[in-house]
Amino acid sequence: MKCFEFLLPQRENKPRKKGCTMVLDKGLGFETAKSLMEIMEEYVDFLKFGWGTIIVHDKEIIERKVEMYKSFDIIPYTGGTLFEIAYINNKIPEFFKEVTSIGFEAIEISDGSTDMTEEEKVDYIKEAKEKGFYVLSEVGKKDPEADAGITVDKRIELINAELKDGSDKVIIEAREGGKNIGIYDEKGTAKEEEVDYLLKNIPEEKIIWEAPNKDQQIYFVLKLGKEVNLGNISTKDITSLETIRRGLKGDTIYKV
Amino acid sequence: MKCFEFLLPQRENKPRKKGCTMVLDKGLGFETAKSLMEIMEEYVDFLKFGWGTIIVHDKEIIERKVEMYKSFDIIPYTGGTLFEIAYINNKIPEFFKEVTSIGFEAIEISDGSTDMTEEEKVDYIKEAKEKGFYVLSEVGKKDPEADAGITVDKRIELINAELKDGSDKVIIEAREGGKNIGIYDEKGTAKEEEVDYLLKNIPEEKIIWEAPNKDQQIYFVLKLGKEVNLGNISTKDITSLETIRRGLKGDTIYKV
Amino acid sequence: MKCFEFLLPQRENKPRKKGCTMVLDKGLGFETAKSLMEIMEEYVDFLKFGWGTIIVHDKEIIERKVEMYKSFDIIPYTGGTLFEIAYINNKIPEFFKEVTSIGFEAIEISDGSTDMTEEEKVDYIKEAKEKGFYVLSEVGKKDPEADAGITVDKRIELINAELKDGSDKVIIEAREGGKNIGIYDEKGTAKEEEVDYLLKNIPEEKIIWEAPNKDQQIYFVLKLGKEVNLGNISTKDITSLETIRRGLKGDTIYKV
Repeated sequence: MKCFEFLLPQRENKPRKKGCTMVLDKGLGFETAKSLMEIMEEYVDFLKFGWGTIIVHDKEIIERKVEMYKSFDIIPYTGGTLFEIAYINNKIPEFFKEVTSIGFEAIEISDGSTDMTEEEKVDYIKEAKEKGFYVLSEVGKKDPEADAGITVDKRIELINAELKDGSDKVIIEAREGGKNIGIYDEKGTAKEEEVDYLLKNIPEEKIIWEAPNKDQQIYFVLKLGKEVNLGNISTKDITSLETIRRGLKGDTIYKV
Repeated sequence: MKCFEFLLPQRENKPRKKGCTMVLDKGLGFETAKSLMEIMEEYVDFLKFGWGTIIVHDKEIIERKVEMYKSFDIIPYTGGTLFEIAYINNKIPEFFKEVTSIGFEAIEISDGSTDMTEEEKVDYIKEAKEKGFYVLSEVGKKDPEADAGITVDKRIELINAELKDGSDKVIIEAREGGKNIGIYDEKGTAKEEEVDYLLKNIPEEKIIWEAPNKDQQIYFVLKLGKEVNLGNISTKDITSLETIRRGLKGDTIYKV
Repeated sequence: MKCFEFLLPQRENKPRKKGCTMVLDKGLGFETAKSLMEIMEEYVDFLKFGWGTIIVHDKEIIERKVEMYKSFDIIPYTGGTLFEIAYINNKIPEFFKEVTSIGFEAIEISDGSTDMTEEEKVDYIKEAKEKGFYVLSEVGKKDPEADAGITVDKRIELINAELKDGSDKVIIEAREGGKNIGIYDEKGTAKEEEVDYLLKNIPEEKIIWEAPNKDQQIYFVLKLGKEVNLGNISTKDITSLETIRRGLKGDTIYKV
C-alpha cells in the first residue's frame, strides 16, 4: 500500500508498453543499488549499465547486480558502447556469449562511436533477435559534429529500418549531458519542430527519449503525457521523474 | 568523541533554537539514508520528504524511514506540495489522519502551487497546531512569474501573519534549484537589499532560508553567522554545510 | 575476473607509480563508502577526507572508514585544510598525534588558506617525512584572486622545492569546482600553455592534477595518456574516469 494512496493518480503498471523509465547506472555499489531499487522498483523498467563501465568491474559483482535488478522485474541491459567496443575488437561472438553468461536478456546495439555501416547494424539487430534478446537500438552519434550531420529525415529512415528489422525500442541519443546533441540544442532545450516531425513519422510508443535533465523530463511529460518513454534518467532522479509524470511536483501539478 | 576535537569550534547543539539545518530527501533508499544519518545525525534538525515524493512510495518503507530519522532526534516532515495536493483533492481530513498514522509529528503548509486564500492557509495552520503538529509554513510561489508578483512588504505581512497564527518556522521558498525565485536572482545570487529589508521586519530565528547551492550557504553564513537557519540542503552537502558554518572550509576559514 | 575481460585494455595495476586516481570523500556514510569501494577498489589509489570534514565527525566512524579504505589497499589521507586549521590554532604536535591515533599513514600539507611561509611549509613537510608519513603537498591558494597572484615560474619553484624536501606527490589546486583557479579559467578549461610550461619544468609522475569535472579528466587523458595522475575525483565518477582512461567511453574511444 502506498502512502497517501488516495492522492495517487493512476498510470500503467509494470510490465508497461508505454510510460517506461530507463535508468542509467554509472557504477553503483551493489548495496546502494539494492537500497534504491527497494524503494523505487515499480518506477524502473529498464536499467542500462552505462557505456563500457562493466568492462572494468568484476564479473561476480555484475552478475549479482543483474540478478538483483531482475528480481525487481527490471530489465537490465548492456550499454551500446560496450557492443561497439566488441565490434571494434572483432569480438561479437564472444560478446554474445559473455552477455548470456552474465545473465542479461536485453542488449543495446548502437553505432554512436564507430563507422559500422547501416547494413551491419541491422544485421546485428537481426542476429540478436534470433538469439532471443530483447533489443534496444540507438540512433545518433556521440560526437556532436558527427551527430549534427544526420538529417531528421535520415534519422527517421534509420529508426524505422531498425524497428522493422527487430528492435524492440529505439533510443534517441542525448548522452549523459543532454546538451548539443540529437534533439537538444546547446542549452539542452528540445528542438520543438524536430520533435514534432519525428513524432509524425515514427511510432511514439517504440521510442525512448533520452532526457537526462529535469527540464527535459518536464518538457516531454507536458508535451506527450505521463506515459512517455524516457531514458538516461540518473539514479538520483527516479522518484522525481515519477512525481513529474503524475503531477505530484510543482512543475506539472494541474497539468498532467 | 570527535576527530580532532581540539580543533572543533563550538556551536549550539540539538535541539537547537537557531542554527538549524533542514535537509531535503528526494527519495533515498532506507539503507543509504540510515548510513548517512549515522555519520551526520547531529547536523540535521529537520528532514523534509520532498514535495509529493512519498505518495509514490510504499507506506511501509516511509514508516521505517520516519522512525529511523526520529531515532536520530531529527524532525521528519511532509513537504508542502503534499499538503497542497490534499487541498486540491479536498482530502485535508484524510491527509491529517494519514500523516499521523505514518508517524509524522511535523508538517509543512504551503500555497506555492495553488490558489488557496490567505485566510484558508492560516486556518489550516491553526488547525494543525490544534492537532498538536509542529508546523512549518512556506511563503512563495513555485512559478517564478507568480512568485515575482509578491512584493517584499506582502511577503513580510504573510510571514508575520503565519507566525502569529502558529507557524513554528517560516520557510522562504527557493525550490531545489535556487535560481530566479524568492530572494535569488536568475544566477542564484541573493538580493542583498531584499534580504536586509526582510530581516528588519521579521524575527530571524523563526526563518529558514532555503539555500540549496553552496554559494548561497556561504553567503548566509558570512552574513548572519554560523547559527543561521538554512533549508533545502542536499543530502550530499550536510557535512560541507557544517564545515562552512564552523569555518572548517576554505570559504569561511578565519571569517566566522 | 572481469566482465568482458577480453575487451579490457591493460594499464598499471596498484600499487601504481603513475596513473593514480585520488578521490574526494566529502562525508560519505560508512556503508555507502564500503559498497562503493567493493566495486571500485582497484581504481582508487588515494582517498582524501576533504578539507576539515572529519573534525565534525565522530572519531570512531572515521577510524572505521580509514581501516576500511586501507583494507582495499587505498591510501586514505587528511585534507590540507585540516592541517592548516591545526597550524592556525598552534596545534601541529597534537595534529600529528591525532592523525596517527586514527590510523592515517598519509597526510596533505597545504597553505591554500593561510599565510604560512614557504620555509614553514617545507619544514612541516620534512617533519612529516621524518615521522614516517607519506606526504602530499598542495600548491595554490583557495581564493581565486590570491591564486592568480602566483606566477607559473613561482609555482614551478614551489613544486620543485617541496619535492626536493620530501613531498611524495604535489597536487595542483583546483578545489571541488575546478573553475577560475590554478590551471583552469573561469569556464573550467585548462590553460594549455600554462600546463605545457609546467610539464617542461616538473616531473610529471610526481604531479596530481585536480580535475573534478569530466571535461578536465578527458582533457588530461587525451593530452597525457591513461597513466596521468588525477585528483579531486567525485565518488560518483570513479568508474567513469577509469573508462575514460581505458578508452571505454565515447569521449576517448579510439583515442587512448
